[in-house]
Amino acid sequence: MSKRVAVLTSGGDAPGMNACIRAIVIACQKSGYEPIGYLHGYNGLLNQEFVSLSLDSTHNLIQQGGTILHSARCKEFTEEAGVKKAAANLVEAGIDALLVIGGDGSFKGATYLSDYFHGQIIGIPGTIDNDIAGTDATIGYYTAIDTAMSSIDKVRDTADAFERIFLVEVMGRHAGFLALNAALSSAADYVILPEHFESTDAELKNIITQIHAQRRLKGSVSFIVVVAENVWPKGLPALTEALNEAGITDVRPLTLGHVQRGGAPVSSDRLLATTLGEFAVSLVGTSSNNVMVGEVNSHPVTVPLDKTSDSKPLNSAQVALMKTIMNERYDC
Amino acid sequence: MSKRVAVLTSGGDAPGMNACIRAIVIACQKSGYEPIGYLHGYNGLLNQEFVSLSLDSTHNLIQQGGTILHSARCKEFTEEAGVKKAAANLVEAGIDALLVIGGDGSFKGATYLSDYFHGQIIGIPGTIDNDIAGTDATIGYYTAIDTAMSSIDKVRDTADAFERIFLVEVMGRHAGFLALNAALSSAADYVILPEHFESTDAELKNIITQIHAQRRLKGSVSFIVVVAENVWPKGLPALTEALNEAGITDVRPLTLGHVQRGGAPVSSDRLLATTLGEFAVSLVGTSSNNVMVGEVNSHPVTVPLDKTSDSKPLNSAQVALMKTIMNERYDC
Amino acid sequence: MSKRVAVLTSGGDAPGMNACIRAIVIACQKSGYEPIGYLHGYNGLLNQEFVSLSLDSTHNLIQQGGTILHSARCKEFTEEAGVKKAAANLVEAGIDALLVIGGDGSFKGATYLSDYFHGQIIGIPGTIDNDIAGTDATIGYYTAIDTAMSSIDKVRDTADAFERIFLVEVMGRHAGFLALNAALSSAADYVILPEHFESTDAELKNIITQIHAQRRLKGSVSFIVVVAENVWPKGLPALTEALNEAGITDVRPLTLGHVQRGGAPVSSDRLLATTLGEFAVSLVGTSSNNVMVGEVNSHPVTVPLDKTSDSKPLNSAQVALMKTIMNERYDC
Amino acid sequence: MSKRVAVLTSGGDAPGMNACIRAIVIACQKSGYEPIGYLHGYNGLLNQEFVSLSLDSTHNLIQQGGTILHSARCKEFTEEAGVKKAAANLVEAGIDALLVIGGDGSFKGATYLSDYFHGQIIGIPGTIDNDIAGTDATIGYYTAIDTAMSSIDKVRDTADAFERIFLVEVMGRHAGFLALNAALSSAADYVILPEHFESTDAELKNIITQIHAQRRLKGSVSFIVVVAENVWPKGLPALTEALNEAGITDVRPLTLGHVQRGGAPVSSDRLLATTLGEFAVSLVGTSSNNVMVGEVNSHPVTVPLDKTSDSKPLNSAQVALMKTIMNERYDC
Repeated sequence: MSKRVAVLTSGGDAPGMNACIRAIVIACQKSGYEPIGYLHGYNGLLNQEFVSLSLDSTHNLIQQGGTILHSARCKEFTEEAGVKKAAANLVEAGIDALLVIGGDGSFKGATYLSDYFHGQIIGIPGTIDNDIAGTDATIGYYTAIDTAMSSIDKVRDTADAFERIFLVEVMGRHAGFLALNAALSSAADYVILPEHFESTDAELKNIITQIHAQRRLKGSVSFIVVVAENVWPKGLPALTEALNEAGITDVRPLTLGHVQRGGAPVSSDRLLATTLGEFAVSLVGTSSNNVMVGEVNSHPVTVPLDKTSDSKPLNSAQVALMKTIMNERYDC
Repeated sequence: MSKRVAVLTSGGDAPGMNACIRAIVIACQKSGYEPIGYLHGYNGLLNQEFVSLSLDSTHNLIQQGGTILHSARCKEFTEEAGVKKAAANLVEAGIDALLVIGGDGSFKGATYLSDYFHGQIIGIPGTIDNDIAGTDATIGYYTAIDTAMSSIDKVRDTADAFERIFLVEVMGRHAGFLALNAALSSAADYVILPEHFESTDAELKNIITQIHAQRRLKGSVSFIVVVAENVWPKGLPALTEALNEAGITDVRPLTLGHVQRGGAPVSSDRLLATTLGEFAVSLVGTSSNNVMVGEVNSHPVTVPLDKTSDSKPLNSAQVALMKTIMNERYDC
Repeated sequence: MSKRVAVLTSGGDAPGMNACIRAIVIACQKSGYEPIGYLHGYNGLLNQEFVSLSLDSTHNLIQQGGTILHSARCKEFTEEAGVKKAAANLVEAGIDALLVIGGDGSFKGATYLSDYFHGQIIGIPGTIDNDIAGTDATIGYYTAIDTAMSSIDKVRDTADAFERIFLVEVMGRHAGFLALNAALSSAADYVILPEHFESTDAELKNIITQIHAQRRLKGSVSFIVVVAENVWPKGLPALTEALNEAGITDVRPLTLGHVQRGGAPVSSDRLLATTLGEFAVSLVGTSSNNVMVGEVNSHPVTVPLDKTSDSKPLNSAQVALMKTIMNERYDC
Repeated sequence: MSKRVAVLTSGGDAPGMNACIRAIVIACQKSGYEPIGYLHGYNGLLNQEFVSLSLDSTHNLIQQGGTILHSARCKEFTEEAGVKKAAANLVEAGIDALLVIGGDGSFKGATYLSDYFHGQIIGIPGTIDNDIAGTDATIGYYTAIDTAMSSIDKVRDTADAFERIFLVEVMGRHAGFLALNAALSSAADYVILPEHFESTDAELKNIITQIHAQRRLKGSVSFIVVVAENVWPKGLPALTEALNEAGITDVRPLTLGHVQRGGAPVSSDRLLATTLGEFAVSLVGTSSNNVMVGEVNSHPVTVPLDKTSDSKPLNSAQVALMKTIMNERYDC
């Protein structure tokens, strides 16, 4: 039986969202479903603003960053009146299933919506932060690691030339996934993570010890500290000043910022996005509802939407690796 | 107790081999081991050609393609006299453990060597082909996917401009991992895989059906066929000719070739290489012997070296995805 | 006074053609002209197949490879009847000026057309080959150099690992611009150029001398020969065989192929394309006719279309540099 | 006659400095000169800290960012005692010619040094800022444009997704070359340049007019303002606040920072660096002294060192183009 399947992208955009939209459209076409795209996140639901999606719209979409459906914050959607209106609009538009590509906040919205909308709701994890429980990775995460890593590779060139200390702030909201992986893969010398942050004093002491040990061992060389955003009180300027006060000068702060959200997705994100998009459509018409699709150990899984905000630990082997391979290597 | 740990790279080089060497050196330094690098694969063992590796040699090594230890084929090592000589040289050099970064053929050599050398032998999977059982991925595989994908992205530009058919040959030795993932992530229209190859006639018929269906549906558009190497008898020229004979003209063959082996590794390969290098060193001095280290479901594992040439299937979900999302999308 | 300005892309596509289309559309909008895009090169003229171009179509166009107007060969356009029909169609469509983005063959077609079409005809040089006289560079040339160079950088990794000889065929039609610049910028060891090709015997002798000299000086190392297409009789297989016969084994041939035509344009091509597109529109309504716009010493110029196929020499300083810096460095 | 030729890199590092060092070493070897590398800029002269450079050190150097000779500021060199000591050290080391790769400040130092050192001094322009008179481009400039452009391409993805306004600060010291070219090639909507800055009020008014005009014409879309560093009083935070106060919210500031100094050089920088390095060595032993080598209209030239800090205007055609093509396109 034919169905109308709606998709929207919400929250911070992430590379691979378009690849996921493409997979959804193709999978719908295969199943005889009619794919609809709501624009500007949940705002589109409130304003009944949607477009028809066809195979034509998917050509050369897999490699594009951003999202052709646009994204936006939506205050109105946090209130009951807004959510009721969205549910009514979905019914009016004859939508059987709504696919929401987004992160934590987007899934909270989806859960809220499910109180009033009785069609299917399926979440698809799309965020560079990887802070969604129930899936090994989120769409956009892999590309953001590579973008941050490549930027730090470039910073290393100039840090080496001047034997300088660089502080590089990496995104991740309140999670350290991106910072940890960017640090490991760029051979950074130190990383500050929300999950392992003790105190500014303890971290400062560690950094300074490492720098001194490294200089004793190798002479003056570059030293790169990756700092997850939202961890250090008052951010990089405060950390720079604290290091200066401790006699460590020639420190340069750099916030990578929004470049981490853009760009053509790397293959891992394209593959994840394609897998999850197709899997989400395969659930349309089944009893799966109010779930997020994810991938665990290379297999597609479903998780209740209200479990997706559970705490998600860093890979402990990676944390240990960081300690072994990197920042404590001079501690003998 | 201090130990001498030797490492060599053998077989086709792969991006991330240097990142692995770096991790080995740092892990050795942490454990108080002395790291040694044999040059030119197994030839180095035969010629007692090795260098000392220090922390200095690891700076800015994580991002370099190729292998600073060089690689080479080694015929002499397939004969008993050669292997005995290598074992004697290892003893003479006081090597406690030998780490071999390479693929299938390299591990066969390592197994052969274990008949005569009674120190530890540990394999580390390094090949862009991913055709090693006992590990989800091999070092270099992720980078090769991205390189092939980016090349096909570029080919798509010109294929679209001219609405042409392109045949793109991708590496992989006798396995379809690289071809399948490059095809999925570049939105190729068809893929020819060794694992699912029926006959030239059947594949030809499928390709032609797809092209006709696509042109019926969309008018004249580009069409990209990814072809795994060593599958089509007599290669791309033969396939081109067969298509021409079937009335499909404007076909362009392209063999991506050795560019797929080079380049700075992507983050996934740097992380895998770092994990496996460190894990291999952590096994030195334990009872683990004649094993390969690998990663399965994000956890480090060991596998007996003689199991690494077992058959390794493609991810069946990916194969299904390829059929759903891509080449059969016009068959209704 | 308002005018209808038509644009088409013809011949081999080149990165930056879209950036040029974008500049034309914006410049037309500024001047109050109406921009029209003919599709599929000269075929569009024959089939009266065109689309209206608006500012909407230019968003995010500057970074796209290929050409949204498509390109194609057009046999019918080499005959009088075809050209007359095209001229009649242009009149019927009310076109005041036709801008042709393409190469040598495209400009021959444009000149032919000018016998029958009495509106303005302005050529814009777009080809990766840079074989158009009257302009320092052609749109797409800079990107192709970088693409070829990056590919050779990757090949160098594997060539170094195995200390192998690689023969890399680079595009350029019958000109050596791309090959020479790719060779210089990738630190290739030898280059074979159409403009400086003496004989297969002389080149072979030189290559072999260089390889022997290099091996004497440095031991066994990698050696990369860049070969312009259409120079060596029977191509890379013949050169490989000739080297083998001379006792130089471990030679790998690699044809870079159509990847050189695609990809997002580099900044130099985007800037050139934007400059030339805007300049071409600025000539609409002036007495400039049957000219190509170009850039010489960073200034826009016009050249009669029939002078664009004049011989264009390589930069002699670059040729000398190649001899000094690269392939003859071991000849003492 | 054999000569000792010293080279150092000074001031901000730039991609291509290593390519230039490579060319110098090879050219020296061809001429029978002995190349020496001083470390850490002028500090190396003061501390008599140098290394011998050989062909071995040039392998795979062309593609590396940074500088293997390191760079540094050097306060002591601005005082007479320091400069005298440097001159004495050069004599002691038997240096016939000193090649200085750097920017404005480095050439001031070189001029100062020439009062006391009577060997040859030759400058080579290396800086991403392109603010050196007497040469069309400086080594590193092209790569920095591409790096900034690629970053802005990524920012465009997220700006489009959210229909946001982004302020992107680009390097350039006190010159607008980098900002103008990054803006033009990334299709930015507005650019703020030191050479054309009237007042904060005038610029603010223009930006706001453009944004309103664009939104009237196209609805809510992304808008990217490229801002040259050191132009806006108190930088991006102040500009963000000023826009907010004018009712333009959803503004995101981003400072690209030191990533613009690093990375593998693009082909144009490798070619320029190779040309200038070789040309500088060709001047050794001639009467050319206290000059900078440069390239004007694709030909190598020399300029007196004390003319290199003359004012260097932006390309007026580019400035006009920016106005025509970009920020004033909605002003009708």
